[in-house]
Amino acid sequence: MNPGFVRQRLIRFSDCDPAGIVFFPQLFVMFNGLVEDWFNEELGIGYAELIGPRRVGLPTVALQTEFRAVSRHGDAVALALKLLRIGSRSIELSLALRAGEELRVSSRQTLVTTSLDTHRAIAIPEDLRAALLRFQESGDPAHA
Amino acid sequence: MNPGFVRQRLIRFSDCDPAGIVFFPQLFVMFNGLVEDWFNEELGIGYAELIGPRRVGLPTVALQTEFRAVSRHGDAVALALKLLRIGSRSIELSLALRAGEELRVSSRQTLVTTSLDTHRAIAIPEDLRAALLRFQESGDPAHA
Amino acid sequence: MNPGFVRQRLIRFSDCDPAGIVFFPQLFVMFNGLVEDWFNEELGIGYAELIGPRRVGLPTVALQTEFRAVSRHGDAVALALKLLRIGSRSIELSLALRAGEELRVSSRQTLVTTSLDTHRAIAIPEDLRAALLRFQESGDPAHA
Amino acid sequence: MNPGFVRQRLIRFSDCDPAGIVFFPQLFVMFNGLVEDWFNEELGIGYAELIGPRRVGLPTVALQTEFRAVSRHGDAVALALKLLRIGSRSIELSLALRAGEELRVSSRQTLVTTSLDTHRAIAIPEDLRAALLRFQESGDPAHA
Repeated sequence: MNPGFVRQRLIRFSDCDPAGIVFFPQLFVMFNGLVEDWFNEELGIGYAELIGPRRVGLPTVALQTEFRAVSRHGDAVALALKLLRIGSRSIELSLALRAGEELRVSSRQTLVTTSLDTHRAIAIPEDLRAALLRFQESGDPAHA
Repeated sequence: MNPGFVRQRLIRFSDCDPAGIVFFPQLFVMFNGLVEDWFNEELGIGYAELIGPRRVGLPTVALQTEFRAVSRHGDAVALALKLLRIGSRSIELSLALRAGEELRVSSRQTLVTTSLDTHRAIAIPEDLRAALLRFQESGDPAHA
Repeated sequence: MNPGFVRQRLIRFSDCDPAGIVFFPQLFVMFNGLVEDWFNEELGIGYAELIGPRRVGLPTVALQTEFRAVSRHGDAVALALKLLRIGSRSIELSLALRAGEELRVSSRQTLVTTSLDTHRAIAIPEDLRAALLRFQESGDPAHA
Repeated sequence: MNPGFVRQRLIRFSDCDPAGIVFFPQLFVMFNGLVEDWFNEELGIGYAELIGPRRVGLPTVALQTEFRAVSRHGDAVALALKLLRIGSRSIELSLALRAGEELRVSSRQTLVTTSLDTHRAIAIPEDLRAALLRFQESGDPAHA
């Protein structure tokens, strides 16, 4: 399995709540941004083009998240994505937020490819499937 | 078990994304608002006072969500909360979004009571525990 | 001029920032919700239908806002809207947030009707113009 | 006057609304992030430390914004900040969003330094004032 796609991020004022920590729905906004970066920068599939002109949606259908430690305004964190599974019409991701060695949030998220005209599941588009397979294999020592 | 706390809500423009449907992190903002209403209107524990002057936090530590159907701008939906379990320092909730008979989102969420000074778990405050127990029993026919 | 369209609202946890007060961009989300309610409940023009099937946008083109006093989590506030002007392709609104007699935020906002296919200004649709004129006159003693 | 502080940014899925363009309150979230970066990276004043341990707030008290052109998901834009005025307890900023040569949003924003204990205006802290003056002069040819 690919060791993953990682981006650094600062916890911003607008991420935090009156308790002074990240408001948990905002974590999913951050992870969604990470998926967007992964498409654009690593898979080479324009996320905005996919959603817009190509009318392919990527809604989340299942989510399991553990919040182990809070993050505060100003914290420097790493967001990490791993591709766990490529289905015929869905992918499963592992998403994590870390600060240094500390794992603070871990999440498993299943996304389905849909038609934005019908909001029904469709087969993963061929170029996306090829990019996902390349990503999956690129970190595998057998393919190095 | 109490049949639950329910509030009606319209899906707003600001809840939705370029795919024309509710952006999933926004569902957790809605559910958080439902928890807030439940505290204020049903449990009789001021949520703002709890978080503010009393410095008791209610962070989410675990979340499992299934998104079965999308919601669109303008949809009239019902948000429903059930109290599944009262622990010593946590509660477990079942949260759902329905449109008519259709179950669109179901979620299990564990919240922990914390000190906002240390962000560590603390025992559920006595008045909150009493209110939770009253709520839990109020829908039970044996107590009717 | 119509005395205005008013809705009560509680300041929620999710409206507030680490400073413990409403994060100012969230005020515009609240005002946008007020405009949405005004369309649905007072003008009788379905806001979701306007934006969705009818493909008429209502982007803001100008905004002038004064923030006179902060609002805190748990505050009960009133959001008020007045219609200042009906143009050929735009309307001008006065928006305010009050707590009791205290004026906390006052804003003037110009919205333009656009085609969501071209994002260019279009004439205000006839049914919307008629509803706006009715609203404007309904509070005028000369028409009472 | 300093030519300004500029950061590039991609318009994200989470910035956009069902009309497919940036939801205007989100522009103020972006500009707030720019102010945060300006403090951290240019002024050398930790924004999170200012708000948190130092209990100095920076609420916006006045805002004038013109939205000249829409931005879409995937657009690469530049956010630019200029310091217009340093008062005794406030600063005035010019904020802009551009795509290439096109000016899409221009805003003037007045921020006040406050005590987060009282939410009242206080004198700009000395280290912040010094950093603001350095910034103001650093782009001035007379000081080059």
